[in-house]
Amino acid sequence: MDSKKPFRVAKDGFRWEDVATLAYKQEGSAKFRDISRQVLFEDPALGCQLRYFEMQPGGYSTLERHQHVHAVMILRGHGECLLGGAVRAVKPHDLVGIPPMTWHQFRADDGAAMGFLCMVNAARDKPQLPSGAELAALRADPRVAAFLDRTIGR
Amino acid sequence: MDSKKPFRVAKDGFRWEDVATLAYKQEGSAKFRDISRQVLFEDPALGCQLRYFEMQPGGYSTLERHQHVHAVMILRGHGECLLGGAVRAVKPHDLVGIPPMTWHQFRADDGAAMGFLCMVNAARDKPQLPSGAELAALRADPRVAAFLDRTIGR
Repeated sequence: MDSKKPFRVAKDGFRWEDVATLAYKQEGSAKFRDISRQVLFEDPALGCQLRYFEMQPGGYSTLERHQHVHAVMILRGHGECLLGGAVRAVKPHDLVGIPPMTWHQFRADDGAAMGFLCMVNAARDKPQLPSGAELAALRADPRVAAFLDRTIGR
Repeated sequence: MDSKKPFRVAKDGFRWEDVATLAYKQEGSAKFRDISRQVLFEDPALGCQLRYFEMQPGGYSTLERHQHVHAVMILRGHGECLLGGAVRAVKPHDLVGIPPMTWHQFRADDGAAMGFLCMVNAARDKPQLPSGAELAALRADPRVAAFLDRTIGR
């Protein structure tokens, strides 16, 4: 954090003073849609970062897994979350803990944007994407298959 | 986090499924009022914890400082924050980064409860309380003195 600027006010529309709205990740490596990233806290003195991700209606994050864990709080809007074999509706202030090596993906409902806070270790491994066989295994569950039809498609 | 319970829903009144509402800290060591603590995420795999602190109207946290830093987001209500020599009004989603060894205290306005998220290193030093001389130095600023009159009193 910038000790000369300890207070940063929240602006309308889930934006913050002196916080840039960034691309979610590099294009091309993985499938995602209509999602942005803001890094709220990033300080070498802290072991973690706090980020805010926001999806436009129908937008979604990458389907991925990794060794590092995520600690998520929904901050705005409504949507759904795929986590391992489960698909759950999520709403403001719901908590989602994403364990190591667990497939996960967030999607905003069609009606409104959804945003969430995500606490994560500053030092972390690179996300993995599912192979064809892993996708097929996920799709064996009809609820998961229906969710994936709404995100990455068939 | 409990990998068997990755989803924990938000309940009314800023409470969460499977999250206990705790005393703010041990009584007797420092002056605080009408404040509770909920630990939202605490996982050995994460370098930090995410806590939610809530003050009843007019309630306040301890005036303290320490080497570890805090990354704060206001989640509910309105209040004010003393940080070093500054006193600032705060509202939902405002960010406050508390640098090392900087006196700080939060207070909820008289009208409504105020709650905030606080990200902090899991391993951290013990807070220090101000000496009489340090309090007098803080009070040299009339805005800080007026704030302290609303919390710890004269």
